[in-house]
Amino acid sequence: MRKQESEGDAPPPGLRQRFLDHAEPLVGVEEGGGARQDPDMLGDRAGLHAEEHQCAGTGLGGRHLDHHSSRALGQYLARAGLAPIAAVGRDRERLWTHDLAPDAPGEAEAVAADAAQAGLVVVRCAEPRARSRNYSLRISCSLGCRRGRRLAIPRYLWRHHGFDCRALRVIEMNFTGLSAFPITPATMDGRVQTDALVRVLERLRRPDLGSVGLLGSTGTFAYLTRAERRRAVSVAADVLGSSVSLMVGVGALRTDEACALARDAAEAGANAVLLPAVSYTPLTQDEAFAHYSAVATASDLPLCIYNNPSTTHFNFDVALIQRLAQVPRITAIKMPLPAQGNLASDLARLRSTLPADFAIGYSGDWGCAEALLAGADTWYSVIGGILPEIALRLTAAAMAGNAAEARRIDEVLAPLWALFKAHGSLRVVYAMARQMGLTDCDPPRPILPLDDAACREIAAATEPLAR
Amino acid sequence: MRKQESEGDAPPPGLRQRFLDHAEPLVGVEEGGGARQDPDMLGDRAGLHAEEHQCAGTGLGGRHLDHHSSRALGQYLARAGLAPIAAVGRDRERLWTHDLAPDAPGEAEAVAADAAQAGLVVVRCAEPRARSRNYSLRISCSLGCRRGRRLAIPRYLWRHHGFDCRALRVIEMNFTGLSAFPITPATMDGRVQTDALVRVLERLRRPDLGSVGLLGSTGTFAYLTRAERRRAVSVAADVLGSSVSLMVGVGALRTDEACALARDAAEAGANAVLLPAVSYTPLTQDEAFAHYSAVATASDLPLCIYNNPSTTHFNFDVALIQRLAQVPRITAIKMPLPAQGNLASDLARLRSTLPADFAIGYSGDWGCAEALLAGADTWYSVIGGILPEIALRLTAAAMAGNAAEARRIDEVLAPLWALFKAHGSLRVVYAMARQMGLTDCDPPRPILPLDDAACREIAAATEPLAR
Repeated sequence: MRKQESEGDAPPPGLRQRFLDHAEPLVGVEEGGGARQDPDMLGDRAGLHAEEHQCAGTGLGGRHLDHHSSRALGQYLARAGLAPIAAVGRDRERLWTHDLAPDAPGEAEAVAADAAQAGLVVVRCAEPRARSRNYSLRISCSLGCRRGRRLAIPRYLWRHHGFDCRALRVIEMNFTGLSAFPITPATMDGRVQTDALVRVLERLRRPDLGSVGLLGSTGTFAYLTRAERRRAVSVAADVLGSSVSLMVGVGALRTDEACALARDAAEAGANAVLLPAVSYTPLTQDEAFAHYSAVATASDLPLCIYNNPSTTHFNFDVALIQRLAQVPRITAIKMPLPAQGNLASDLARLRSTLPADFAIGYSGDWGCAEALLAGADTWYSVIGGILPEIALRLTAAAMAGNAAEARRIDEVLAPLWALFKAHGSLRVVYAMARQMGLTDCDPPRPILPLDDAACREIAAATEPLAR
Repeated sequence: MRKQESEGDAPPPGLRQRFLDHAEPLVGVEEGGGARQDPDMLGDRAGLHAEEHQCAGTGLGGRHLDHHSSRALGQYLARAGLAPIAAVGRDRERLWTHDLAPDAPGEAEAVAADAAQAGLVVVRCAEPRARSRNYSLRISCSLGCRRGRRLAIPRYLWRHHGFDCRALRVIEMNFTGLSAFPITPATMDGRVQTDALVRVLERLRRPDLGSVGLLGSTGTFAYLTRAERRRAVSVAADVLGSSVSLMVGVGALRTDEACALARDAAEAGANAVLLPAVSYTPLTQDEAFAHYSAVATASDLPLCIYNNPSTTHFNFDVALIQRLAQVPRITAIKMPLPAQGNLASDLARLRSTLPADFAIGYSGDWGCAEALLAGADTWYSVIGGILPEIALRLTAAAMAGNAAEARRIDEVLAPLWALFKAHGSLRVVYAMARQMGLTDCDPPRPILPLDDAACREIAAATEPLAR
């Protein structure tokens, strides 16, 4: 690759901020529309480099792509059905400038038009310390987030310690279909249990899922510190890779804190942020508008309005939703089930007042089969976070217009819906996660684990579902 | 004073915790029931030491009480109408053990029975650095808090830089009369503005006030970090001295955080804690019980239940209040105005189910004249935090049974009550504090300052009151 003499091999500046403020195009490669979509494998066409990496074994010295000129690399990738795309470089502490410079002046711009499509970006390994599991996070941070995309590194590359080349898959937020809201297992003092979180999230690593909704109400965002929330996002971005888009709850009582959380989420690899109107002092509609506008500006990620009066006690006027839908990056809403009236009319009322491309989804699992059948874009689902299979089957049936099948599955889930209503879905899914061996964490105090009788009811209701 | 050879002048251990865990009796003096209650002056009887301090001027060396034997000191103090009391020693980093040892074995125990009464404790200055304004805080922390008492150092002693003796007044929580809830001025990024907070609190430094309710809803506790809340309590304990008891809001979503806040408040000089049932995930009655019980155990301070469904959205069953009233240290409740029915019957219903010495007070300023007239123990007041004079006059009239005068003053305040209802009292008192020149801080975002029209209405409503 061409060296930028002005930067050369000088040590990286200490101030990360300097890079955050200046997005620059990078050399990358866009994956061709091949059939091999397994995020764990590049496929045979990448075999040459994979073999090279295996040969390199775990040797001390990092291997280099210097034996490829950047042009040759491009040709190699083209031969493999890949083509360069533009990405955003933010972290030259780890990715040296000369590794990331465009292949030729104007080349990055020329391919930028394609950047919105999912693809792969290849960069050279910068440093030996980059050979850790966290490298994918750092690459993700450094490349993808400012554009609302996440870059995931195929797993097979991780297996080789001598690699010096990374293939990164680009993923965009998907506001349709099933959005699964997992719990965030944490110790009693609020430390995220990453092992358990990985177990929970690995069940959601599937391309038929629209998105994962990390740190929603079910993800106990309100009970975790900023540092723990950032840690959870990093883990999720790493586990989910490019298999499913990742939306992250950034609710906070203070506007400045919600903005900081949105920036954290973007840097850690989220594809969208989800913002509830958390309040202590009851908010006016204008205050909520200012709050949402500020957070929408805090990162480049698309923002989903989280309308959840049962926890936030804030009620959105339709006029406020309309105003918010005009704010750049506010592109979706997560609605509660209507308190009265049927869902179809609630949705129709919203559709008639909101832009055509504004995504409207519902939460409240027991009403979401009807929501999808009525044409909602998204089911924001608690059960999807713990039993994705059955939730995906219900979603697929409803979105295909197969009302009978959707309602049949919904009926199978009815005993669980009754328990959600009786105990709150959060307490129920914690009990389920314990029963499934995913975690032995309880919800954060003051929320208490359910008693034995309730747990037995839950086991009885879920036993036929988990098959 | 007698030296404890085992500790001598060895440097203080670095682990503060070691001292926090082992409360020990100290030598002190209890003020006689003289007429001179001015917290700024010990009176003529303390003249000898005051003169000594003046003679000492600002000399470098700390002066010592070594020229008094501890017995002689006791006699001197007895001559001045003072007698030893027991206190709790917790911080030998600053107060050396040999300064604080009992005069004779058993002496501290002998006088402990009187410790509950307000009085003075005399200790020797330990270090030159103790001659700062913050010394009163540290002394307060080190002596008073584990017993729910606060110790304040008479101001006249502060005027002398060469002092080596401190007279500390003991104050207990007072759950009756007017409890004034001030704002906590803070920067836009949530840093408490101590200068402005001092200005706000100095208006509340008056013995006719029952208590100050720092970090209530009006004090924006929910929007401040633990560190900032601790800072605010320290400032308040310093400013209020022994003039008025100090209750501190320790609300938090997490039980462990609320417990930590209660400990912080105790250490920083609070006389009681106030705990709202803050929630995100709606809490069950059992969860609230466990939450309150845990926080009541976290410190030795009395705890006031903060029942405020308009902000917390938690509703206390009467059965829950009854259960909580049985928990040690839970000794008071701050009730909202009844949603329906009159106040007298609401109070009578509570009185009939709660222990006779359980203090029942109300918030919702526009209904509190009636609450006091009906026999409530306390008016938890927003207006009291910004206009204490008129609130105190209303309180005095109502508690004396002068219904006509209480209602007359209530009527004078009616325009302000209307503004409280229209805009929320928090936004209104921030506008008032600005207009009075106390602070130029706004409420924390997302809460917005009121517009000019509302501010003009507020100025018009308060102009006749501030005279």
